[in-house]
Amino acid sequence: MSEPRSAAAERGREAGTSAGLPVVGIVGGGQLARMTHQAAISLGQSLRVLAASPGDSAAQVAHDVVIGDHTRYADLAGFAAGCTVLTFDHEHVPSEHVRALAAAGHTVYPAADALLYAQDKRAMRERLSALGLPVPEWTPVGSAADLTRFAEKVGWPVVLKAVRGGYDGRGVWPVSAPEQAVRLLESGVPLIAERRVPLRRELAALVARSPYGQGAAWPVVQTVQRDGICVEVLAPAPGLDPDLAASAERLALTVAGELGVVGVLAVELFETDAGLLVNELATRPHNSGHWTIEGSRTSQFEQHLRAVLDYPLGVTAMTAPAVAMANVFGGPAEAAGAPGLDERLHHLAARWPAVKVHLYGKAPRPGRKIGHVTALGTDPGRVRADAAAAAGHLTGGQQR
Amino acid sequence: MSEPRSAAAERGREAGTSAGLPVVGIVGGGQLARMTHQAAISLGQSLRVLAASPGDSAAQVAHDVVIGDHTRYADLAGFAAGCTVLTFDHEHVPSEHVRALAAAGHTVYPAADALLYAQDKRAMRERLSALGLPVPEWTPVGSAADLTRFAEKVGWPVVLKAVRGGYDGRGVWPVSAPEQAVRLLESGVPLIAERRVPLRRELAALVARSPYGQGAAWPVVQTVQRDGICVEVLAPAPGLDPDLAASAERLALTVAGELGVVGVLAVELFETDAGLLVNELATRPHNSGHWTIEGSRTSQFEQHLRAVLDYPLGVTAMTAPAVAMANVFGGPAEAAGAPGLDERLHHLAARWPAVKVHLYGKAPRPGRKIGHVTALGTDPGRVRADAAAAAGHLTGGQQR
Repeated sequence: MSEPRSAAAERGREAGTSAGLPVVGIVGGGQLARMTHQAAISLGQSLRVLAASPGDSAAQVAHDVVIGDHTRYADLAGFAAGCTVLTFDHEHVPSEHVRALAAAGHTVYPAADALLYAQDKRAMRERLSALGLPVPEWTPVGSAADLTRFAEKVGWPVVLKAVRGGYDGRGVWPVSAPEQAVRLLESGVPLIAERRVPLRRELAALVARSPYGQGAAWPVVQTVQRDGICVEVLAPAPGLDPDLAASAERLALTVAGELGVVGVLAVELFETDAGLLVNELATRPHNSGHWTIEGSRTSQFEQHLRAVLDYPLGVTAMTAPAVAMANVFGGPAEAAGAPGLDERLHHLAARWPAVKVHLYGKAPRPGRKIGHVTALGTDPGRVRADAAAAAGHLTGGQQR
Repeated sequence: MSEPRSAAAERGREAGTSAGLPVVGIVGGGQLARMTHQAAISLGQSLRVLAASPGDSAAQVAHDVVIGDHTRYADLAGFAAGCTVLTFDHEHVPSEHVRALAAAGHTVYPAADALLYAQDKRAMRERLSALGLPVPEWTPVGSAADLTRFAEKVGWPVVLKAVRGGYDGRGVWPVSAPEQAVRLLESGVPLIAERRVPLRRELAALVARSPYGQGAAWPVVQTVQRDGICVEVLAPAPGLDPDLAASAERLALTVAGELGVVGVLAVELFETDAGLLVNELATRPHNSGHWTIEGSRTSQFEQHLRAVLDYPLGVTAMTAPAVAMANVFGGPAEAAGAPGLDERLHHLAARWPAVKVHLYGKAPRPGRKIGHVTALGTDPGRVRADAAAAAGHLTGGQQR
């Protein structure tokens, strides 16, 4: 940390933690902040949340909530004043504000230089390429000519991606011919094009890194997407070659170290016949790590707090041989007359008494991610089936 | 529940849960409420807390906090108005207020009739005796003559207990001669006397019961007291005869059923050469169940919420063969110049990276219970040593 520990503790006392502990502020009030607050409680903390609205997922459950706009520097600076360290629920704070906060003397983890690679896909691709790390073939594109030239090299279809702002399948467009991209190219949105990689499956390597430089890796998981949105996570990735798993962990720890990440880093990976390729980075707790709440001795949320507080990191061993997480979405049951969420939760508790439920306090509109469930056991197929069935039920009677 | 589920959900919506779930209110803002809020977050809930002061343990971390006096009916009734169901962090709400809340149409779990047996040791002893359950020989005492008559029957010393208000060793007085009890007997405090039982050790049987009547028991644990205060809990109780363990679980489920408890019930037991005797009851989550947060698939806090919400109960299987919990107290390290709590937490994380810490947000005054730690593993001796050492360190450099 940039100030003596005793001074940090003193600021903690001023900011209201009666035990004299430092205060962590998180920018953004989504479910990641909600679950980070839940972990913070054990550490004697009460997470300070900058939320856009009082109804935000974390704002519903945290005591110390400030309503503000994460794109306004004045709001960020006012929020930071009471915090020992600042961290993020999302990547949407402008880099220049993150830099200005650090220049004003605030401790911000991850720092702007690291956060950039989760914000800007072009910068991420350039940096990983420069480090010699495996990424899909890619190029920046500004015109149909750029796109055609690239596609003639790697073959159609190619994948166009917005350099900034993509999330959960948004900002990603598979394109089979240049005319499909005309409007996108004319929109002025900065884009990169990537080779569409033939993949066996998607994996994620989750690690954490402290300011001291300590690193810790969880077992590599398989992520299952539908329409570009993660629906299931299987830990550990079933049948993954141990050498490939070890190299994925090393790769993620290398990225965390080289990019100077402090906190949790999720590295989304493609497993291909030719080996691993890095798809995306997230410098925060990530959907691919929700299974760690029950499935690891240290959850990604506690570990993120340990890291940004510069505490030594916790043990990442699994608590069961097989863990499966499935996301819960608002579904067709929201239609009039269908059983409400409370009724469905009641049924879930009866049918799957060992499945752990996490609801985010979000109104269950169709397609909206409103929670997740986790199943633990010894048989990977069984826990996957249980998690999927329970999530499908909670989503609204769907059995996947 | 006393009203249709859809009406409950409607009140939940009015009270602000965006997902339309029922609202649980808890009377009391101590660490039990704090940890119950933490569990509530997963269920899509945000616990509503009636705290005596904004600095209370739970009030620091919950969003929906009402400051009020749990002995004033107006405060209780105002608090209850926004809640689907009311429950308790402690036993100190007057029975007549609990009855009045129920009469006014509020759902209160545990109900006054069940709560009474955690409030009033005489009523508890009478009821358990009437049910034929094993309790130490006892009698109400109002005078030195009563005391002498009882002691001549069971032998000195005997244990005097305040009928109401005892806690953590307070309200309990071992007495070896009638003259030692003169001032106590003259004080007018209602008392019972109990035979001082020669015990092998203390155990606790923790169960939960839903309004529907479903029961669930965790493995029986050993509790280790010092100066009448629980310092360690070992799960499962090491070397406990399986038949005795089974009978302790049955006994606790019987008590829960006969007394109509809804929620968690802790039955503190003496293990003697002649079998088990019931020492105390608590109709709420209890220090002897803190190990369940990481040590069981369903924690006592989640289970208490499931019970009072009339959800089916969760699985109580252990997550590891051996779990040990040790309480953390404010200690000598609070002296000037000694390392602060943040520094000690830093050291703990480095030395015991697998130990889980729970701090309650309380200023660490010497002797005050400020948190607990939990160790999980396969070797009961090792987890006990780790938990004790980590707690001793956090308490302030003491190694127990």
